[in-house]
Amino acid sequence: MSALPPEALRTELAALVGAGQVFTDPADTERYEQGARYGDGKAALVVRPGSAAEVAAVVHYCAVHGVPLIPQGANTGLVAASTPDSSGTQVVMSLERLRGEIEVDRANRTATVGAGVTLQDLNERLAQDGLCFPIDLGANPTIGGMIATNTGGSRLIRYGDVRHNLLGLEAVLADPPGQVLDLMSGLRKNNTGYDLKQLFVGTGGTGAVVTRAVLQVHPLPRQTATALIVPTGQDAILDLLIALEGEFGDFLTAYEGISQAAMQSVLDHVPGTANPFAPEPVPGYALLVELSSTASRELLGVDLQQALNDFLERQFETLVTNAVLDGGADLWKIRHSISESIRQQGKLIAFDIAVPRSSMVAFRTDALAMLQRDFPWLRLFDFGHWGDGGCHFNIVWPHEATPAFDADTVEKLRVAIYDLVVRGYGGSFSAEHGVGPYNERFYHRYTGPAVQAYAGRIQKAMDPHGALGRVWFGPAPAP
Amino acid sequence: MSALPPEALRTELAALVGAGQVFTDPADTERYEQGARYGDGKAALVVRPGSAAEVAAVVHYCAVHGVPLIPQGANTGLVAASTPDSSGTQVVMSLERLRGEIEVDRANRTATVGAGVTLQDLNERLAQDGLCFPIDLGANPTIGGMIATNTGGSRLIRYGDVRHNLLGLEAVLADPPGQVLDLMSGLRKNNTGYDLKQLFVGTGGTGAVVTRAVLQVHPLPRQTATALIVPTGQDAILDLLIALEGEFGDFLTAYEGISQAAMQSVLDHVPGTANPFAPEPVPGYALLVELSSTASRELLGVDLQQALNDFLERQFETLVTNAVLDGGADLWKIRHSISESIRQQGKLIAFDIAVPRSSMVAFRTDALAMLQRDFPWLRLFDFGHWGDGGCHFNIVWPHEATPAFDADTVEKLRVAIYDLVVRGYGGSFSAEHGVGPYNERFYHRYTGPAVQAYAGRIQKAMDPHGALGRVWFGPAPAP
Repeated sequence: MSALPPEALRTELAALVGAGQVFTDPADTERYEQGARYGDGKAALVVRPGSAAEVAAVVHYCAVHGVPLIPQGANTGLVAASTPDSSGTQVVMSLERLRGEIEVDRANRTATVGAGVTLQDLNERLAQDGLCFPIDLGANPTIGGMIATNTGGSRLIRYGDVRHNLLGLEAVLADPPGQVLDLMSGLRKNNTGYDLKQLFVGTGGTGAVVTRAVLQVHPLPRQTATALIVPTGQDAILDLLIALEGEFGDFLTAYEGISQAAMQSVLDHVPGTANPFAPEPVPGYALLVELSSTASRELLGVDLQQALNDFLERQFETLVTNAVLDGGADLWKIRHSISESIRQQGKLIAFDIAVPRSSMVAFRTDALAMLQRDFPWLRLFDFGHWGDGGCHFNIVWPHEATPAFDADTVEKLRVAIYDLVVRGYGGSFSAEHGVGPYNERFYHRYTGPAVQAYAGRIQKAMDPHGALGRVWFGPAPAP
Repeated sequence: MSALPPEALRTELAALVGAGQVFTDPADTERYEQGARYGDGKAALVVRPGSAAEVAAVVHYCAVHGVPLIPQGANTGLVAASTPDSSGTQVVMSLERLRGEIEVDRANRTATVGAGVTLQDLNERLAQDGLCFPIDLGANPTIGGMIATNTGGSRLIRYGDVRHNLLGLEAVLADPPGQVLDLMSGLRKNNTGYDLKQLFVGTGGTGAVVTRAVLQVHPLPRQTATALIVPTGQDAILDLLIALEGEFGDFLTAYEGISQAAMQSVLDHVPGTANPFAPEPVPGYALLVELSSTASRELLGVDLQQALNDFLERQFETLVTNAVLDGGADLWKIRHSISESIRQQGKLIAFDIAVPRSSMVAFRTDALAMLQRDFPWLRLFDFGHWGDGGCHFNIVWPHEATPAFDADTVEKLRVAIYDLVVRGYGGSFSAEHGVGPYNERFYHRYTGPAVQAYAGRIQKAMDPHGALGRVWFGPAPAP
């Protein structure tokens, strides 16, 4: 907790970054204090350094004075890792000013970016060179936030996550406070000791603040094919995935499941959407397949959509009972509107989970049975990334339901689902969103004591005084 | 250094793993003591545990008694990281018995393997399911050794390195001594705190001993196309790479450069090889392109070889002056015989380096000029992975040369080349082979003090008493 009087803190940080970049007025600080899904903290103030040197100065100052510091990107995170607690003593350090020019090295197929550059800005710049950074998300985070979260998204099956596309970074360390670590390699092969940048990926702003990065980028696809498929049954889903990977492994960019409830919710609540299977009813389960290729139709000799259509025709009746071909934008609109639509049905209880792909059917079957038995008034609107085992197992407590919403029951539900995921199927209680204060209790519940002890040992080595970030990965309680 | 008398050490380790698995007779220990390229140490003994529990017992025993322990896989490493020093006090722990059954999860597209399984055994098992682990190397290492080295190989441009395909592992920690850490996730998405397995990838057997792993595997290609191309000049090499990635990004699996000297060396010394360009002379520089696809000819509508041929025809005279089409096995034989052939020309001075792809032409030009100016009696036989920036910049000191071979001059040459690579072009002095005792002096020369300090801090947290492995990544000298 800060021992400094608020006015002194403000004055001294203003001396480091300029008076115009330190905010204390609630009208200015509010958007940095409330998380996108959880958390409604109160910051001592918000500081916006404009360079790595200013970040270093702020980190050093706060560490020396014992002021807790929370790094923040675009504040699109879903686990409250980048927003302050309610004490009013934590300083939020927004990194949104760390932009500068995006440097594209065409021959190296890399982009060098400031941590404050947004995904959208990066992709607009890359498109000028026929390139993209293909981590596909609903939100528009900063690159620094994507690194701190190790975001995955809908196209992980093809491109991997942020970790797989991160060639280098620059970080300001919690300890020695404000030390800049230059790991700005643009190399794909470099085995010269610890790959230290891995310590700053997916660790939610603990240990260090990422200020710049070198990213591997990819050619923009020149052909895309989509289909929305009704499998013959749950058991066909994995067989179809295996068949698609065998036939189209080079091209398969997404394999997304959409439950009947999720699709119906979109059709009921999102203007401009229609049942793609009409006049047939909305199917019990549907799979959105996307293929894409950098090769042109001329080069391949085949239209990718036609190849997908032909493939599906061969699977008809064995694995597939119906399919809507092409219509990519409309199909993706349904997929991307699910989260928005289900919020209108009641209180959203979101689960960002993963299991091995081979366990997805069994997990879903078990979880549905458990919900019907123990929480029959809740409604499931699940959808997920079958290609990578991720699943947004989202549940709604309807406004009109009996019993009325209560937090204790929600916690029991969370534990019941996560127990099944982690203990029943060796899965993850946070596939894409990270730990953060919101998931910290589940981290301690599901992470083995040896792993927690080792993580704590590493975190202690990186940040002995807990200067940065909000999560302690060692054994609870914090030392 | 061991304080135990050798006989006590032998007896006590035999009690842990069985008397038949502790070797002291030089006839038995020799193959574990001499490295594949460097190092000719002497072990106190060799111990071969047969399970993770036995590994844990050996690590615990050696740590408690202060006996230095060197984990070893198939002993194919090239930097002496897994062979003992000359003191006769270090124990080599061979992990070759950690095999057991290879478990293939077809729907999860993963294989669970013991650390002692070899790459070849794994790929033979996977082929039964139409799968492969596509890290392509000349040697036949164990999976544990591949993880400890983070091997890359010729097809990194398409599949990434070991780190990119490692979903989980089990490790026995140096500290707490013999503690087993279970990180055996088969998950592609799992952001639940530190990804601790990253600490054991590419770190040369320090910190922990990997005993098992979960690997992401890939469908076997069903079509392959190759061509050996003569570019119009050095400047065309990168333009051709950009064009290939734009046209065939989905399919490009290798883009390997072969210098004139390297190809001539193969033709002169390796039976069964012939100049693919005859009656034209061996070209000044050639590029081996490989495309591959899991899609069949029927599915794609085009033969991949035909597509490559058509593409090259369109590049004729602008980027390409000549090309040998198809003949994949013969072309790869030339590529894979280079190392063997150049050993016959004199003393090999090997360089395993990388620079950003965009700097490869400039680096090579500078390095050639430097060699001609300062070391005109040496002969360069370079070949490399232009797709990922890696280069085996191998030099031979001919037997018949004047001046005669001397180690001081070799060291000056090493420093001259590495200075150019690292300081001139932001490259790596060890792209694929790791650090090891052999490269430790270069690690300390080329790694910035802040990075060394941080690496030492992490290594100290993982192994406070230096129980495992041969390299200290902190600032020299060792504490």
